[in-house]
Amino acid sequence: MSKLRVAVLGARGRIGSEAVRAVEAADDMELVAALGRGDNLETVVESGTQVVVELTTPASVMGNLDFCVRHGMHAVVGTTGWTDDRLAQLNTSLAASPETGVLIAPNFSIGAVLTMKFAQQAARYYESVEVVELHHPNKADAPSGTATRTAQLIAAARAEAGCAPQPDATVTALDGARGADVDGIPVHAVRLRGLLAHQEVLLGGEGETLTIRHDSLHHSSFMPGILLGVRRVVSAPGLTFGLENFLDLG
Amino acid sequence: MSKLRVAVLGARGRIGSEAVRAVEAADDMELVAALGRGDNLETVVESGTQVVVELTTPASVMGNLDFCVRHGMHAVVGTTGWTDDRLAQLNTSLAASPETGVLIAPNFSIGAVLTMKFAQQAARYYESVEVVELHHPNKADAPSGTATRTAQLIAAARAEAGCAPQPDATVTALDGARGADVDGIPVHAVRLRGLLAHQEVLLGGEGETLTIRHDSLHHSSFMPGILLGVRRVVSAPGLTFGLENFLDLG
Amino acid sequence: MSKLRVAVLGARGRIGSEAVRAVEAADDMELVAALGRGDNLETVVESGTQVVVELTTPASVMGNLDFCVRHGMHAVVGTTGWTDDRLAQLNTSLAASPETGVLIAPNFSIGAVLTMKFAQQAARYYESVEVVELHHPNKADAPSGTATRTAQLIAAARAEAGCAPQPDATVTALDGARGADVDGIPVHAVRLRGLLAHQEVLLGGEGETLTIRHDSLHHSSFMPGILLGVRRVVSAPGLTFGLENFLDLG
Amino acid sequence: MSKLRVAVLGARGRIGSEAVRAVEAADDMELVAALGRGDNLETVVESGTQVVVELTTPASVMGNLDFCVRHGMHAVVGTTGWTDDRLAQLNTSLAASPETGVLIAPNFSIGAVLTMKFAQQAARYYESVEVVELHHPNKADAPSGTATRTAQLIAAARAEAGCAPQPDATVTALDGARGADVDGIPVHAVRLRGLLAHQEVLLGGEGETLTIRHDSLHHSSFMPGILLGVRRVVSAPGLTFGLENFLDLG
Repeated sequence: MSKLRVAVLGARGRIGSEAVRAVEAADDMELVAALGRGDNLETVVESGTQVVVELTTPASVMGNLDFCVRHGMHAVVGTTGWTDDRLAQLNTSLAASPETGVLIAPNFSIGAVLTMKFAQQAARYYESVEVVELHHPNKADAPSGTATRTAQLIAAARAEAGCAPQPDATVTALDGARGADVDGIPVHAVRLRGLLAHQEVLLGGEGETLTIRHDSLHHSSFMPGILLGVRRVVSAPGLTFGLENFLDLG
Repeated sequence: MSKLRVAVLGARGRIGSEAVRAVEAADDMELVAALGRGDNLETVVESGTQVVVELTTPASVMGNLDFCVRHGMHAVVGTTGWTDDRLAQLNTSLAASPETGVLIAPNFSIGAVLTMKFAQQAARYYESVEVVELHHPNKADAPSGTATRTAQLIAAARAEAGCAPQPDATVTALDGARGADVDGIPVHAVRLRGLLAHQEVLLGGEGETLTIRHDSLHHSSFMPGILLGVRRVVSAPGLTFGLENFLDLG
Repeated sequence: MSKLRVAVLGARGRIGSEAVRAVEAADDMELVAALGRGDNLETVVESGTQVVVELTTPASVMGNLDFCVRHGMHAVVGTTGWTDDRLAQLNTSLAASPETGVLIAPNFSIGAVLTMKFAQQAARYYESVEVVELHHPNKADAPSGTATRTAQLIAAARAEAGCAPQPDATVTALDGARGADVDGIPVHAVRLRGLLAHQEVLLGGEGETLTIRHDSLHHSSFMPGILLGVRRVVSAPGLTFGLENFLDLG
Repeated sequence: MSKLRVAVLGARGRIGSEAVRAVEAADDMELVAALGRGDNLETVVESGTQVVVELTTPASVMGNLDFCVRHGMHAVVGTTGWTDDRLAQLNTSLAASPETGVLIAPNFSIGAVLTMKFAQQAARYYESVEVVELHHPNKADAPSGTATRTAQLIAAARAEAGCAPQPDATVTALDGARGADVDGIPVHAVRLRGLLAHQEVLLGGEGETLTIRHDSLHHSSFMPGILLGVRRVVSAPGLTFGLENFLDLG
């Protein structure tokens, strides 16, 4: 089997340089180009790239993707900053190149994606659900974006299934004790030296609890998700948003 | 909406008496019969039962189900001891009553079923998977049947996805340190006073781990699964094996 | 060795009846009296009681203890509602009976006491400490009294050791995300169906974390602490406040 | 207050170079020498070193310590390979220099040391104790040395307190399911990609469990222990074995 020809844009960044190594290490891929800021995109075409891994900046990503799509190169995109306008614009480009696939993923950690998916699936079967996220103390926001998103997905799944509100007999509480309220789901944020990025979804029903915990110890944990995206995007024309669409959860 | 008319067989047993209370407490069900050893099955027919909850013994279950199916009553079965022969015999009964549904579930704990399902789904995405089960010290077998079954399902999912064997550089080990080997998946059994029934599936990949933990604190945890079975079996003709088939995991 | 002669006051309450069984089951004790509301205290003296287990109400406890101390009977007290005034009054009684011992314990769970003790001991060695308590959703207060007390003890230990304030770079937070502030220690309260009473103390430093977790599954967990108190109070004249004073933590 | 003058031997190794940075970053210390293989020990004397941090090899450590003690320099030693003979020889050197202190620590992780200490303290109060250690899959031995040592300390504490054997009704077990037996304490070893070094001590009694968990994420976790050793060894003449002797656990 011939190897997939892959180029990395943003190859000198923290995640980009990790992606370069991961593509090089993958048996079924060949790294044919690795571009940093200022490098010429034409190199990518000349190298015969089939899939571009886009890890640059919100300022560059639209131009880069427009170029890729026009040249029929598939793309796996980790760059953030997506708005409805931007997605509409990308869909317009893709309409003109119906065999090209683009995967945009806000999170390439398979564990984070599975945690959200499992939490959504389980949410309707339990009376109570809470989220506890734990991070290093240098983090600026609380709760984390992933925890907020997880809680929103849980709340939506429960609403769709017609779940009753969660039981909570709290009468007297210290401010903040019961966490932040995200669409009715309590979310607690712990900040502790020695931690990196961790998240627990706790689900409870009569006589039992179910806990789904994701521990992320290094950004190398994004690489299996990026490689999975590269392998799958070549047979997924059009726009795919979210890595979960490429996981086989049958 | 009229209520589902439910009968419980084995109603004086530990789980059966709990089931009686659970059916009585359910808004959408009416308990129309509760039979113990020696009671006459005709009562069930006379009471207009739609669904029978079968919680008796391997010695009684075949006769009871044959009776139910012949009278067009659906059944939700927690009694164990199923062999291929018994299942074939039950299928023959059902063939003659094509609108009747029977659900047999080795485990009515929704948490245990979800844990197995999620473990199967996630198994292919991680290099390493191990199972740790923890129970009270009066338990006679190690590992638990649920843990063994979970490990088998994980192993099968990995085989189907073509996963490589798990990495393990152990050279010198004390006997037993690395647990029991169930189809290549290490399974560890902890026995501790103060515990009831708990299970953890640990999955690990480059830079991240995913943990799915189920804590079962009381056999009342089987009730939501039994009630779910009752609600769903009326529109699921034929034989269904395993509660997971009635969970919406879309 | 002759057995310790023990009486239980409040013997018909939930904890009291458990204590009656625990004393009866202990090899080194003999239950000589078990009194409920309205029973005559003289019975206790007549039965030759050496140690009284006091599990009544704040309204009864002072009279009961005054009676015990005057008759030279030691006491192990689980009844709550202690104020400085009440303690002073009890000390006055004890001064007149210098060989009599009284143990008052706000918490007879050895696990809860050890958790607090270990948290205090470890607190000075870590940059960050947070407390997460998890209870059933019928609980009226958040955080639990035990969690608040644990946080206060941790804060005091850190102040005494001259620890710097905890690092926390949070700039934007949802209300409540970072928990309640108890003397500078964040405390988070989870309420989940299926849980009983659980507490985790998380300590974090450069490159490592230490977690102390206590899971309380049944109020039978108070019995080993009560029995330990009975055995030790006979050789501990005067007032002892807190079960931790009777634990050998050398 | 004048700063402690510290030298690091083995300064170019993995731990040594981390120690150099840690000493430089400490407000109350001054790094006055950092020697690697082949460097001249006289430098250390000339630099006015008060405390030497010894992180070399078993082949070098005896000569280095003999030199330090003769020159009245205190030492904090992380090098391994200590036998009774070697300790006796070191004690002889120290006898001739009665004001000099040497700390040898098999483990400088404060969390590991606290875990062992707490496990020993709690062990006598619980019917059941088991140890679960979890490491990356490149580890050659199972269980880890720390887990084996922890189990031995627990067993010794239980023997001293006269604890009964642990309850375990297991009749049928798969080989290895119940872990390795270390002096009667079951020890389980998990090997999982994505993990580093983790250990859990589980203690269980009637109605409750206590869990002490240590997660070690980076060898930088040894630094606070080394710095603590440096600060304390100057006022602890003679040989001290084990960092726990320098922890204030009152």
